Amino acid sequence: MNTFHSPAPFHLESGETLPEIDIAYHTFGTLNERKDNVVWVCHALTANSDVKDWWPHTVEAGCFLDPDRWFVVCANIIGSCYGSTGPTSINPATGQPYYGDFPKLTIRDMVNAHILLADALGLDRIHTLVGSSVGGFQAIEWIVEQPERFDRLILIATSPKASPWSIAIDETQRMAILSDRTYGERRPDAGRDGLAAARAIGLLTYRGPWGYNITQQDPPAEGIPESHRACTYQRYQGEKLVRRFDAYSYMTILDAFDTHDAGRGRGGVASALARIKCPAIVIGITTDIIFTPGEMRELASMIEGARYFELQSEFGHDGFLVEHEQLNRIMLGN
Amino acid sequence: MNTFHSPAPFHLESGETLPEIDIAYHTFGTLNERKDNVVWVCHALTANSDVKDWWPHTVEAGCFLDPDRWFVVCANIIGSCYGSTGPTSINPATGQPYYGDFPKLTIRDMVNAHILLADALGLDRIHTLVGSSVGGFQAIEWIVEQPERFDRLILIATSPKASPWSIAIDETQRMAILSDRTYGERRPDAGRDGLAAARAIGLLTYRGPWGYNITQQDPPAEGIPESHRACTYQRYQGEKLVRRFDAYSYMTILDAFDTHDAGRGRGGVASALARIKCPAIVIGITTDIIFTPGEMRELASMIEGARYFELQSEFGHDGFLVEHEQLNRIMLGN
Repeated sequence: MNTFHSPAPFHLESGETLPEIDIAYHTFGTLNERKDNVVWVCHALTANSDVKDWWPHTVEAGCFLDPDRWFVVCANIIGSCYGSTGPTSINPATGQPYYGDFPKLTIRDMVNAHILLADALGLDRIHTLVGSSVGGFQAIEWIVEQPERFDRLILIATSPKASPWSIAIDETQRMAILSDRTYGERRPDAGRDGLAAARAIGLLTYRGPWGYNITQQDPPAEGIPESHRACTYQRYQGEKLVRRFDAYSYMTILDAFDTHDAGRGRGGVASALARIKCPAIVIGITTDIIFTPGEMRELASMIEGARYFELQSEFGHDGFLVEHEQLNRIMLGN
Repeated sequence: MNTFHSPAPFHLESGETLPEIDIAYHTFGTLNERKDNVVWVCHALTANSDVKDWWPHTVEAGCFLDPDRWFVVCANIIGSCYGSTGPTSINPATGQPYYGDFPKLTIRDMVNAHILLADALGLDRIHTLVGSSVGGFQAIEWIVEQPERFDRLILIATSPKASPWSIAIDETQRMAILSDRTYGERRPDAGRDGLAAARAIGLLTYRGPWGYNITQQDPPAEGIPESHRACTYQRYQGEKLVRRFDAYSYMTILDAFDTHDAGRGRGGVASALARIKCPAIVIGITTDIIFTPGEMRELASMIEGARYFELQSEFGHDGFLVEHEQLNRIMLGN
């Protein structure tokens, strides 16, 4: 992991300012001489800049992020806790972590940090911009803001504007965090039980009915089961997140996701998407209940010349992490 | 509302005993002389015995629970807080409310209370048994236990066994309640914030993406919205439940739902459902993400001679409460 430090004040869409920011990023492969082999990946939610770690069978020989061919860049979003400036970073003004004092961010702020990094790395031209889920929120924002910078766009299971449904999911997670009365205390594990519950809520929406019913069936039992595999799974996944994330960062990024509207100040979503001039691929997932296939087809129809593909998956929104064979086939074939 | 008091010890499937129980119930219409016009409705989750209140356009002249024709009975499930014995009832052994000391229930315990009431009312024969959602859990349990008692079965958006997915939804709600550290305190509003979050989780699954995206769109706005309609809705619905329900009762019924397995001790679900000999109607909802249309069709296929219908709805699982016109058409036509 590398860190880019920007010592200048970083102006946020809200009008507030961060006195300085760090941007943590990974690169894979080598930038060629013509600098025309750059793939920029925007990560989702609680992921980080290490694409190879969270997106199996992508940054590999023969796969669509093959490091022998591509120079792959991914930056941790600001507001998160994987090296980029966020609520657990030290506030230079106080010498203490920001925690609940961290300002509210928008997707545009996250993208402005990406732009700062891309400029600093001298990547004037980016061959392919890839965004899945809320990574796609960033990708859409970025290409709409700088349409000339990209030669190809790949959007997976995402949206040009946060839907009421996705906002309701986020709000429910916030309610769970706020119901943990330790949230607000100035320590990194404040609100940990609420965060675990929030994660469990998220998981329901990432996997959906088919995902759970395939993977979490109980073994045959006599009598009333003491517990269920699905219960253990939810608690385990909540605990697992709590060990690697904090409630302040989680709240910051949830809040930012809800602000997503590529059409804000641009005459609406349709006219924003009309700015995209490069070839685009839009990929939906048959069982995704967050970004439904219907919405994904609509997104594709709003980007001129975009081609639409669908991953056949039982794993809901998480299908983009699971169905790497289909994904590679689509990416390499088009 | 009427209350039936059973002073005898009520034995639970777990082996524990409640020293006595109350069963709150409503009736609509008049029992005819031949006693062959009884419709028994099993209610879902946080509903109560007042069917007319929670199921619009059913207990009405010309509708399928027309009180001029039918004698409609609905009992509040034990474990709940609408008059039947539950965690906020007084424990005769201590003179104090049970709260967290209330024993764990199963769906069979709830059905045994229904049987106690039906026997006391002299309703040896029930013309139609109706259950939607977890009301259907009770209906399936009951008809499998006493198949000769019923002339017709109507199951709406339900299941013969709690699926891993529905258990995961329940566990996530439990996590939200437990993350509120006031849960466990001996007062009726203990865990209220957690309960509100749990309700918000439930709502996500009742309405699903289409329901929210139709009803909770924000009005057009300049700049970054301060809040979103979907957020207000989630918080409002959470608050609304907290005013009429308590976290102890909610936990008790969630736990009971997870025990649902009509096949337990009966050689599995298929052989349990094979006991049903009366005509059955099974109704799924096109956008239900809790009990998916695929699962509903499978349920219908497991009940001999059952006919399957589907409500066309954008309102997910809640479609059974919304699509009264389609519902009445199916019920009255068949």
